[in-house]
Amino acid sequence: MNENIEKFRESIPLLGNEELKELIKDIPFNDLVSIWDDLDTDEALKILSLLDIDDKVDLVRSLSPPRQEELIRNLSSEHAKVLLDEMEPDDLTDFIQSISPGVREDVYSHLSEESREETQFLLKFDEDDAAGLMTPRYLALRSSLSIAQALSWVRQHAKDVETVYNIYVIDHQKRLIGVVSLREILTSDDNEIIENIMEENIISVKVDTDQEEVAKILEAYDLLALPVVNEDQKLMGIVTFDDIIDVIREEQTEDIYKMGAMGGSTERYLESSIVALVKKRIPWITILLIAATFTTNVLDHFTSLMTAATVLALFIPTIIGTGGNSGTQSSTLMIRGLATGEIHLRDFWRVMAREIVVSTIIGFFMGILIILRSVFLPPFVGLVPAIAVGIALCFVIMVATMVGAIAPLLIKKLGADPTVMAGPLMATIIDLSGLTIYFLVAKAILGL
Amino acid sequence: MNENIEKFRESIPLLGNEELKELIKDIPFNDLVSIWDDLDTDEALKILSLLDIDDKVDLVRSLSPPRQEELIRNLSSEHAKVLLDEMEPDDLTDFIQSISPGVREDVYSHLSEESREETQFLLKFDEDDAAGLMTPRYLALRSSLSIAQALSWVRQHAKDVETVYNIYVIDHQKRLIGVVSLREILTSDDNEIIENIMEENIISVKVDTDQEEVAKILEAYDLLALPVVNEDQKLMGIVTFDDIIDVIREEQTEDIYKMGAMGGSTERYLESSIVALVKKRIPWITILLIAATFTTNVLDHFTSLMTAATVLALFIPTIIGTGGNSGTQSSTLMIRGLATGEIHLRDFWRVMAREIVVSTIIGFFMGILIILRSVFLPPFVGLVPAIAVGIALCFVIMVATMVGAIAPLLIKKLGADPTVMAGPLMATIIDLSGLTIYFLVAKAILGL
Repeated sequence: MNENIEKFRESIPLLGNEELKELIKDIPFNDLVSIWDDLDTDEALKILSLLDIDDKVDLVRSLSPPRQEELIRNLSSEHAKVLLDEMEPDDLTDFIQSISPGVREDVYSHLSEESREETQFLLKFDEDDAAGLMTPRYLALRSSLSIAQALSWVRQHAKDVETVYNIYVIDHQKRLIGVVSLREILTSDDNEIIENIMEENIISVKVDTDQEEVAKILEAYDLLALPVVNEDQKLMGIVTFDDIIDVIREEQTEDIYKMGAMGGSTERYLESSIVALVKKRIPWITILLIAATFTTNVLDHFTSLMTAATVLALFIPTIIGTGGNSGTQSSTLMIRGLATGEIHLRDFWRVMAREIVVSTIIGFFMGILIILRSVFLPPFVGLVPAIAVGIALCFVIMVATMVGAIAPLLIKKLGADPTVMAGPLMATIIDLSGLTIYFLVAKAILGL
Repeated sequence: MNENIEKFRESIPLLGNEELKELIKDIPFNDLVSIWDDLDTDEALKILSLLDIDDKVDLVRSLSPPRQEELIRNLSSEHAKVLLDEMEPDDLTDFIQSISPGVREDVYSHLSEESREETQFLLKFDEDDAAGLMTPRYLALRSSLSIAQALSWVRQHAKDVETVYNIYVIDHQKRLIGVVSLREILTSDDNEIIENIMEENIISVKVDTDQEEVAKILEAYDLLALPVVNEDQKLMGIVTFDDIIDVIREEQTEDIYKMGAMGGSTERYLESSIVALVKKRIPWITILLIAATFTTNVLDHFTSLMTAATVLALFIPTIIGTGGNSGTQSSTLMIRGLATGEIHLRDFWRVMAREIVVSTIIGFFMGILIILRSVFLPPFVGLVPAIAVGIALCFVIMVATMVGAIAPLLIKKLGADPTVMAGPLMATIIDLSGLTIYFLVAKAILGL
């Protein structure tokens, strides 16, 4: 947030519409979205009224559902109509799904007949599937047209569709039989027939293809849009790249939340209720707590050892903390590698070989480090216990690294999601095995 | 990986070219990329030769740098020439940057004069800036043209550029003065002048705009391409949406690595050397280990307490583990919220208010849970020490949650990257304060 935008925000109540309009021109759109939550409803409506229609639509699309709802409720019926009519059917459907049922009726009443029908058609599909992302506003034509005819037809209908850059070719039963890009049409001879230039090897998705799969396909082929077909190969709609970018961002948030031991809802933090925030966090914290309590049993087993060498208790947090960090590093590499397709299950032994070497090197250095640290700095433990701790730490790092690497691969093999499961499972195994290794090694070296 | 693709892979050495070509048609492109690492060089060359040129380019683009290099080295000079000539200049530049210097000379010798010039121009810019993503192959025309003239000009030049869908309007000094979409050209009257329909309020980026910023702008406006200008507003190139999707993915990997306490290089795991893997992991592990050893000083301070009530040592891992998990949850929400722009520094007090309430609720339940667990299950600690542990855990969770929430906001305020710094900083503070709170609370309740 820079100074300009702060100044602008402060000047909103002071300036007239004409002056504000001039100012808005110089404000980056992102900044406008970012101050939106600070505006009261009157200010927000004032600013909205000064934007041109495309920016209005973009702005409403960028806001969070509660703010969208508030705006729509406060707009005059006429303004709401214009705004809703300009929204693409897929965005409109998302919007309708996110607002409260009371406002929904209101929104429906503002829609044109066409928009209402399109929205009701789209609402039938699952939000997270290809069909939940698609728009029914695409260009489709017959294969017998000449290029000149096709171009003139595209020019007539360009205003009504989300993209004119991919044009779909359908048969008399509306089955998708080809795709042609506007670029190919432009670079072909006027007398050429569509059938001869269309791509028949069509890359399409089904209505129920998962949205993450849709994103991967669009990415792999660098497509602007993907056609969505039903089981009879009938063209139902298209998914455009801008919706896919949103899917990738959402997926990213989900993955990061999972790594932070939280449920996958991606609701905005400041708009989540306290109940929602607790619900998001308490399940994993509980599972992890119960798992962690097994460490009390391991420690209970070594009570007499800790009494004999009280110095050993001092290193418990360091040992399991460092073990946990090593495991996090290797599991993060595996989870990400599996997600991006860089690592496959068949690479298991190659992964193991690398992790054994890497963890031995890291373990060796960390072992030396903790020996020096413990002997020469407070709490100044003796050399023999320090060596016991150092050797134990080296082994703990090796085991923790292997557990961190194996857990995601194993979970993937079992068909579950490594992102959610690997962290907690791994943490528990590392804590339990780490403490056991630590005390056994120390016991052996100290001769207790 | 499904069975079909496995079968296909096995049949490669057995089948003739014609049969293989038929089979390849039915193989999804993603699957082809995924088996590539399993093919030996001869097999890979065989398959490559059977693909049409667009798929060849897509495939080479999708491979990792070492595999790309291997392919190019083994292709006949003539085939390499064709392939390299079909690559977009921005992809070609990335490719040249990733291969070894020896092969680079070879690649240069295969390039056409035009490609060589374009590549050398692009190589001057930083890989992570807007200019590092841009292609110089765009359409730019003068504002005085009529729509009919413009359309005919676009049709003539469509073959030479990366996208025909955004057309840029420049003055006689090559300064960007407007943008017009192909769609607007198509829907305008043939006699209209470009100047009258072009958008003068241009959304552009500078050559040195960071690539993540470029991604955010393209996303906010749902653009297909963004023009890149120099300080004199001269048009240097354009960045297209497909490159932005790659940036978003790369950024995602970087963030996930940072959360897993590792350096930001996004090199593929299986292609990283052992030295690279150790280098990626050892710095953070070392810092975290040194930080963790301060817990030995805290524990040293409470040695007499642990000797008086040995049961307290049993809960050390559970207490700091659960504290760490609570801190991870709140810090993950903050880090992600800051990254997506949902949370701003000015929301500090709103965030604190929510986290206090949420952490009190979670702390209360976890406290009850550990009391019940410790009393009724082994190691069967007495009710009084169990209550001491439960109350201490509740406080630890509250403090850890607050630390987790404050750390990212504070680091952001100081101008550093919360993703890298928050985890380690937080873990250390939580371990130290958690242990201190634990022993102080336990001491007070047990009256020792």
